[in-house]
Amino acid sequence: MTSLVLASISPRRKSLLTALGWKFHVVDPAVGETNGDGELPKDLCRRLAMEKARAVSLKYPGELVIGADTIVALEGEPLGKPKDEKEALKMIRSLSGRCHDVMTGIAVCQKDRCLVDVEVTRVKFRPLSSCEIGAYVSTGEGRDKAGAYAIQGKGALLVSEIQGCYFNVVGLPLYRLSLLIDRFGIPLSRQWEEFR
Amino acid sequence: MTSLVLASISPRRKSLLTALGWKFHVVDPAVGETNGDGELPKDLCRRLAMEKARAVSLKYPGELVIGADTIVALEGEPLGKPKDEKEALKMIRSLSGRCHDVMTGIAVCQKDRCLVDVEVTRVKFRPLSSCEIGAYVSTGEGRDKAGAYAIQGKGALLVSEIQGCYFNVVGLPLYRLSLLIDRFGIPLSRQWEEFR
Repeated sequence: MTSLVLASISPRRKSLLTALGWKFHVVDPAVGETNGDGELPKDLCRRLAMEKARAVSLKYPGELVIGADTIVALEGEPLGKPKDEKEALKMIRSLSGRCHDVMTGIAVCQKDRCLVDVEVTRVKFRPLSSCEIGAYVSTGEGRDKAGAYAIQGKGALLVSEIQGCYFNVVGLPLYRLSLLIDRFGIPLSRQWEEFR
Repeated sequence: MTSLVLASISPRRKSLLTALGWKFHVVDPAVGETNGDGELPKDLCRRLAMEKARAVSLKYPGELVIGADTIVALEGEPLGKPKDEKEALKMIRSLSGRCHDVMTGIAVCQKDRCLVDVEVTRVKFRPLSSCEIGAYVSTGEGRDKAGAYAIQGKGALLVSEIQGCYFNVVGLPLYRLSLLIDRFGIPLSRQWEEFR
């Protein structure tokens, strides 16, 4: 049996892995999320996922360590976590009636080997009135979320459709993760049993 | 404040509404799910959603009653709940490497008024080996599920992407439900507060 380590303290990521029936340890990667000059969102989340998985893998070299970093991008521009209510209102207003991308860099490391990939999901918001935007922001749910919303909570009502992996929008692309784990010699046929 | 009644005993539907922060009563509609001769999947789930909501609405006429019925359809043919492991294997094999539709009829009734709609989500399965199909079916998770899988559980690893509403695949199209409730005079801007 291989042990699994999640290099992320996000409760959303933890609950997604738990829903698969997997057991794992959570370790805070304590990596600063700095944005390199002119770095594209895709490159940024790939680099950060790798840095997080690597930082934890140094301490747990024999185990499979999972790192992830999720970015919301509107027309190529990253939207971070809103610093206050005013910025949250502005973010939700900018997403209203349009499509944006949610991308997660996902890395798996074991010993000296580290594999990384990026999953992109397109999310379409319904058109929202100022009143509706205000009502959602007032719930406080989006306060600590990139893009100022949570699709798995009250924000479900903001989204008319998605294209791609849903779990990626929550913060962890499970299908893509499964493909990476396969490349470490644990095929899908064994994944449900291996980490129980 | 309007009261909400969920005319479904599905734990998945219950947990989706709970994630919105909504309070509601659950009432078993006790409607037989018979398939009319030559009835198309879309018409079937629309009719059953309506029958469920209406049956419960007779007892709770003043409240907003939600009925839903979810069908998995592969090239227009409905896949029900597998009656045994052999049928589950056959269903997952038929879904492997292909797209299918998950459709939910969603009805909201209050007094004499009943509104109904159907949401369709396209789901793409990754190509699966016999070994992988067997491993998934062995988990037992798909036993009581239409199409023999659960996207919100271990079945997440079977799905490479979706197009449309994710919550619809779980069993309750939240965005579509929100649009129906809006037509009962409770706009989105009030929905997060109204049912707390």
